[in-house]
Order: sequence, then C-alpha cells, then structure tokens
Amino acid sequence: MRIVLLSGGSGKRLWPLSNDVRSKQFLKVVRNGDGEAESMLQRVFRQLGTAGFGADITIATSAAQVGSIKGQLGGQVSLVVEPERRNTFPAIALSAAYLYFEKKCPAHETVAVLPVDPYVGDGYFKMLKCLDTAVQDGIADIVLMGVKPTYPSEKYGYIIPADVDVKPGFDSGKTDMHRISDISGAWDKRMSDALAQDLGNAVTGGDVPRGSSPSGAAGIMPVEKFKEKPDARAAQELIGRGGLWNCGVFAFRLSYLMDIVRAAVECGCYADVLRQYSTFKKTSFDYAVVEKAKSVAVVPYDGEWKDLGTWNTLTEVMEEKPIGDVAVSGDCVNTHVINELEIPVVVMGAKDMVVVASPDGILVADKVQSSYIKKYVGDRDLRPMYEERSWGEYTVLNLSVDARGNRTVTKKKLVQAGKCMEETRHERHLEVWTVLSGRAVVRIKGRDHDALAGDTFTIERGILHGLRAVEDTVLLEVQIEEAETC
Amino acid sequence: MRIVLLSGGSGKRLWPLSNDVRSKQFLKVVRNGDGEAESMLQRVFRQLGTAGFGADITIATSAAQVGSIKGQLGGQVSLVVEPERRNTFPAIALSAAYLYFEKKCPAHETVAVLPVDPYVGDGYFKMLKCLDTAVQDGIADIVLMGVKPTYPSEKYGYIIPADVDVKPGFDSGKTDMHRISDISGAWDKRMSDALAQDLGNAVTGGDVPRGSSPSGAAGIMPVEKFKEKPDARAAQELIGRGGLWNCGVFAFRLSYLMDIVRAAVECGCYADVLRQYSTFKKTSFDYAVVEKAKSVAVVPYDGEWKDLGTWNTLTEVMEEKPIGDVAVSGDCVNTHVINELEIPVVVMGAKDMVVVASPDGILVADKVQSSYIKKYVGDRDLRPMYEERSWGEYTVLNLSVDARGNRTVTKKKLVQAGKCMEETRHERHLEVWTVLSGRAVVRIKGRDHDALAGDTFTIERGILHGLRAVEDTVLLEVQIEEAETC
Repeated sequence: MRIVLLSGGSGKRLWPLSNDVRSKQFLKVVRNGDGEAESMLQRVFRQLGTAGFGADITIATSAAQVGSIKGQLGGQVSLVVEPERRNTFPAIALSAAYLYFEKKCPAHETVAVLPVDPYVGDGYFKMLKCLDTAVQDGIADIVLMGVKPTYPSEKYGYIIPADVDVKPGFDSGKTDMHRISDISGAWDKRMSDALAQDLGNAVTGGDVPRGSSPSGAAGIMPVEKFKEKPDARAAQELIGRGGLWNCGVFAFRLSYLMDIVRAAVECGCYADVLRQYSTFKKTSFDYAVVEKAKSVAVVPYDGEWKDLGTWNTLTEVMEEKPIGDVAVSGDCVNTHVINELEIPVVVMGAKDMVVVASPDGILVADKVQSSYIKKYVGDRDLRPMYEERSWGEYTVLNLSVDARGNRTVTKKKLVQAGKCMEETRHERHLEVWTVLSGRAVVRIKGRDHDALAGDTFTIERGILHGLRAVEDTVLLEVQIEEAETC
Repeated sequence: MRIVLLSGGSGKRLWPLSNDVRSKQFLKVVRNGDGEAESMLQRVFRQLGTAGFGADITIATSAAQVGSIKGQLGGQVSLVVEPERRNTFPAIALSAAYLYFEKKCPAHETVAVLPVDPYVGDGYFKMLKCLDTAVQDGIADIVLMGVKPTYPSEKYGYIIPADVDVKPGFDSGKTDMHRISDISGAWDKRMSDALAQDLGNAVTGGDVPRGSSPSGAAGIMPVEKFKEKPDARAAQELIGRGGLWNCGVFAFRLSYLMDIVRAAVECGCYADVLRQYSTFKKTSFDYAVVEKAKSVAVVPYDGEWKDLGTWNTLTEVMEEKPIGDVAVSGDCVNTHVINELEIPVVVMGAKDMVVVASPDGILVADKVQSSYIKKYVGDRDLRPMYEERSWGEYTVLNLSVDARGNRTVTKKKLVQAGKCMEETRHERHLEVWTVLSGRAVVRIKGRDHDALAGDTFTIERGILHGLRAVEDTVLLEVQIEEAETC
C-alpha cells in the first residue's frame, strides 16, 4: 500500500502562526513521547513510520510548502509538487500519476490518501491496513475511514452507512444528501462479515478503540450517502443512524484512479499529466470521484481524532506550559501562550484565553471567540513574516515605504551550515547583505567571496548571486525597490 | 517664581511602554484639547505655559532622558542634567545651584519643585501662585501642595495639618509618624487668615475646585506631621483629621535652599556643585529638607489629580479607541489596546484588560492585576528597545549572540531632516550602516560621503564617525562586538 499525504491548506484560522506558506501542519506546538515539540506533519510522519508505512509515503503539496516540508522531514521525502493550487481531485490525480509513472507502482496496489494534519492515536494508522484489505478484497471502489462522532458537530461532513437491507426510498428526496449509486448491488453481506474479522484483528493489535467490542467497532459498511455540515439536530439524528465523520481518508486501487486520470487527460508519462495540470477541474476528490463511484464503503474508526483547525481545539491538545519567552501570573486560568518573538510576553489575570505572538502579528483572544478570527484577519494582506526554507529560515524584521514610494524589506536569514541559497537574480530590487555571524561563501556574477561577520555585499538589480554557508550563518538582507524602475 | 520640574523615575510599572530611558512622562497616550496625542511631559509643559510659567521652567533630569525631553519639547528647554542618579534631594540642590549661579535668579525668589508626571486640571497650576504668595509672605520655610483625598489610598504619603491650637501630645508616640518641629512656634493664626483671602482669589480665577467654598478649600495650614502609606483604616482616620495626599510639590525661597547647599558642599559657582555631586547624600528631599524644616505649611488642592503610575489608572484617562495597528472584536469590554509594533494586533472577547505591544515586549493583563507587573518584569534586564533622541528615534530590530559569544545589535534609526548624530567613536564594536531611504552626509575620519538608499558604510572600531540628515533618513545600523576584543 502506498500512502499519499495531502499537505495543503494555507489557513488563517490559526493566525498569527499560520500564513500562506506556514500551514497549521508545520506548527511545532504538540509534543512527542519524549516531550519534544513537533509539528503535526512530523507527528503524522512519525506515526506512519511506527505503523510500518515509513517507506511508502508521498506528500502532495504546493511549491510554497516544499521548503517547510524538507526543513522538517529532511530532503529524502518523496514529493509531488502541484504546479498550481487546484483543489484535492487534481492533486490526488497527479499523485496517482506520479506513483504509476515515476515510482512504477503496480496498478493493483492500494493507495490511501490522508490529510496531513489530524491529531490522532496510533490506532488510526493501524486501521489503514483494514482499508488496504477491503480494497484488495474488492469490497468497494473506494473505501473511506469514518470517525465515530463524539458530539453532534455542525462543522464536519457525515458519512451515512447503509443498512444492509437498504430501504430504497430512505430520505432520497433531500437534494443536499448525496446518494451513492448502486450501493445494494455492490454490496455483499458475506464479504462484510469476513472482513470484519480481519479488521477486528488489526485494531486489537495496538491501541484499544473506545468502542465496547473491537470487531464490532471495526465493522466495514457500505455507504449510502453523505451530508455536509448538518445543523445540530440533524447531526444528532445522523449519529443515531450510525453516521460517521468524514475525516478525508480515501483508499482505492491505483488502477481505479489511473482510469479516471486517463479519462481526463491523455498521458503516457508523468510529465504529460504535469503539463496538463491546469486542465483538471478545480474540484474536490469527494465531488469528482467519491460521489460518482459505483460502490463506496466505510471503516469506522473509534479512537482519538481531532481536527486542530482552531485555537480552541488546538490548545486542547497542548500543554498549558507556555512556549517561548513568556511570564504568566499564577492567577491565569486555562490560558495558552505562545511567543515566537524575541521580546518577552507577560500575561496576567487571563482566563480561558489564547495569546500568540509571531512575526506575523499578535493574537489575544478568548478561546471560544478565537474561532471567529477570520473576520479580523481575513481582509489583511498576510505577507508571511517568517518562513522555513530548504536552506534554513528567515524572519522579516522591517517593512517600509518612504515618501517617494520606494519600498524596503529587511530580513534576518539563517542559512544552515552546508546549505545553499541557490543562485538567482532579482529584476525589481537591489539587495544589501550584512553578515552578522558565521562563515559563508558568497557568489556574485560567478565570483566567490569569503563572507565573515561585518562583511557587506551590495547586489545590484539583475545580478546573479548565491550563498553557501560554511558554518551556520546569520545575515541581514535589505531589499530596496524603487517606486519607478526604469 | 521659578519652576523646577523633576523628570525622573525609570519605571517598570508601565512596562512595556516604559523603560530605563522612556519613563511614563514620555508616553503619548493622553490627548490634548484638539484630540492630538501628547505625553505627560508635553501636557504639563503646555499647562504651565497656559498658567503663565512658560518662561520660568527648568527640568532636572538624567543624561538618559535628555534626548527624549529635547525631542518632545524642542531644544530650547532649560535643563539641569544630574551627573548620576542620586534621589530627589541632590537633584533639587543641583537645580537650586543652577538657578542661583547660572540663571542669576535672585535669592529671595520662590522656587516651586513639581513632579513632571501628574495628570491634573489647570487649577493645580493656578494654585502655584498661592504657594508663591505663602513663601514670599514668610508663612513657612517650605510650603507644600496637598491633594484632597478621594478615597483612603494605601499607596500615598499623607500630610497631616496641625490644628491651629496644637495639642502637643497628639499621637507623638508613634515613631513612624514624622513630626514637624516647632509648628506652633512658627505659626501665626493671623498670617493664615490673611493668606486665605489671597488663595481664595487665586483659585476662583479659573477652574472651580470641587470643595464647596473656594476660600475654605484653599485655606493654608501648618503641617504637623507626615505618614507614608498607611493601611486603609489608618488612611480613613487621617482623612477624617484633614489629612492630604503628598503630591511632591514643594515651594521655598531660593536662599533657603542655597543655605542648605552651602552647608553640604563648598561652592562659588555651579561647576563646584556639579563636581561634588557624588558627595550629596542619596536621599529624598522629604527626608533631607522637609522633615527637618522649622516650619512647613500646606495648601490644599481640591481638583483633579491622578498619579498615572499603573496601567489601571493610566487607562482611566485614555480613550478606549485603540492606538496603532489593532483590530478589536465588538464583544471586548473595557479593554485598552496600544500597539507600537509594525505587526497587527487582534484582540477578541477580552474584558477589563490592557494589551500593550512595544519593541520592549508584550503585556496582556487584567487591569486590576496589572498593578503587580513589577513582579514579572522586575528581574529582567530591560535593555531599551526604543528610544527618542535629540536627532530622531531608533528601534532595536534584533539582538543576538552567536556560538562564539559575539554579539550583534541591529537598529533601525530615523534621523530627522537637518538633525545630526554627533561624531563619536566606539572602542568595543564595529558598525555597519545601510541607508534605507532619505539623503544624508556621513562623516568618517573627517571625510564626508553622500549617503543614499542602498549605500553601506563600514565603521571599524575606534573610528570617528557622524551623520547629518539632509532629508528624513532611515538607516539600519548593525553593531558587531566580538567576544574577545584584543
């Protein structure tokens, strides 16, 4: 089985830590067993390794995230880089083509697609083996994982399993309920029973799910339909009928998806698909594939699953110990503080709050209110003030525009020993580098210069320049762009 | 009458806006009649001008504050700069010597010493005329202003007026009550009555004090003793006896203090006093002079007086409209937000809080709790990250120490058109300047260089250098100090 991790989602809901390049999966706010801070990406990658899938992972992402991913996982990770952002269907289609053409993955193999950012127990990854078994046994074209709901959430999509004796008229009049075609035809009760045995074995191997009976909890079911974001009352009713949260985990045979890819674009190699990427419909995999599948099944997962999409939910899994240079008074209650700046933060007498300071901005919010953050940062031009790159990281120290409209950007860059900022040229701005510490070789117009603390380099517009760090090197970069360049 | 404003008090209670050079008097958080932000220093200076004392003001301060004072009031203000911090007695003694020797102020003139940072109505300054009259009439050696208490505060010092028929045994057994010697001897009931008439006239000329009868409110009284920070019950009792808050306003004849100065140091000119400054006892004017005076009188002031020493009291006189790049959700209640940083601050669902972000740090505090701030920032090494100087202002963008112990400081400096950073040399660090915008002339080793956006200047240790801004000029200054300089 191959694993495709979808690393998408530039988000504002975790502002100011998340921005266009720093999605929530890169935030190092949770801790591993050793108490070390790790990101959701690192956590999921580690958990997949523990579950035995370490060698089989491909990450589908955008160019903007490549630096962060390589910075956090190392350079060896297998990446599919979308030429542009086009939603999940094109991204998964591209990943399938990559596995098939580039990785020479056999067409009969199972591909499981997972979001990169759920906070889950290890049982979740063991459950992937059940999805693999179900796909290989031909139970359905698409096999989903469904999370047993813990409350009637209005935020999630629900997967509604069919009774095995499907009542054909059941609720089909509701147009916002997506009905899976031919469920009863595709389903075989005996297959389900046989599979339930496998699933039971798989899930009892490690984490014990919350359900009373492991094999019961793991029973695979045909899917009748989906319901997006019901109101609380409808959600309660769906849960009563066995409805499960759609957590975005899909499994299928590679051949099944390659047929769909070939129907969309003519292709004989990966480059063909890449080149025609912009012709794929900008639509979700749910809509383009799952809802059109002849048969869809779901494996329930009854263990820890959290969508850490808001400060309110994220802080639930964080220790209350503040992160960064922070002093918190003893009378603070249920308050989380994260400080990524180099200046101290003092919090006194706060209750049920989240305080987050980053180079992008400062949030002080009541936890419940924090879920409405988009209203306050949605319109802002969120230029990232901090980015991890393949060579290290940078922070924007200053942005300014003078009376004539000339713009300057001042960045502090840390280039790791042995890493390179590849040679490039800028047509719109000149750059001035001042080395603060470390040792590097600066290449300007093909000529190498030793660079030590106190050295400056002025790089005029259009001049090819790059840097290789001999030791960890910190430099200040000033970009100056004139209002009217001739 | 001459006015001496004491501009002291590096404070942490208004952290992160206040620091060692930026005391609370420099914070532009209150507004003048035109709605423009002004600092306490600017407000008091403006109010003194309105009261007719504009030409008679001398400010006693430390070298660290000279830049801020000149920046806020202009270069023409008369300054007495303490060679070192030694408390209020030496500072007032030095100011007296300055007025006497340098300003050739006649010895019989009244000197009124005022703190620079009370938030008061204009009536407070009109009351200074009453102090002048009392001093010139020889009512007492020292005449104080006493603020009519509005509640039994435990934070202030109390001035307890004597009954005119003094009961000699009254409370004298309490050792923490400072008793003024010879009160009954120095006091003449008829003088008091005559003066009350003058005082009544003075205060009814403008603001109407809160008291029911102007002449009654203004009645001058002999002082029996002082009590520092009583508990609430004792404070209530003192108020019952007519006790007043000591607001740090003292008036005396210049000759009276010059006698004390001459007793302390031998002197025939200002330079003599300046040179021997370190021999003055590090003690308060209250202790060294007021408590030892033969006769002390007090003029009550019954108008607006606020000691804006904590965020709780300061925000009482501030509009709730946030200052700086701030978004506040509609459900915030009684919350003040000040943002001096260039990144946005978002505050949601906060109640009774103060949120302040400055280059020095970030405070998020319940207003009542904010008065305990010293506990959380008291131990910190509060290197100022922002300073106003005579030539403009600077902000520290970055501080770092590398693995070898080399330190760098990166500052953004704004030098105002026509202003100079005087020539200087640094023995411990080299400097690199990068001009971001504007136009200036940089002088290095006596040679002038034109400086425009993108230009860099490397100034080795020990080299004389300065800058004159032709236009408003913004530059980045990197200081690099090696761990071991040879």
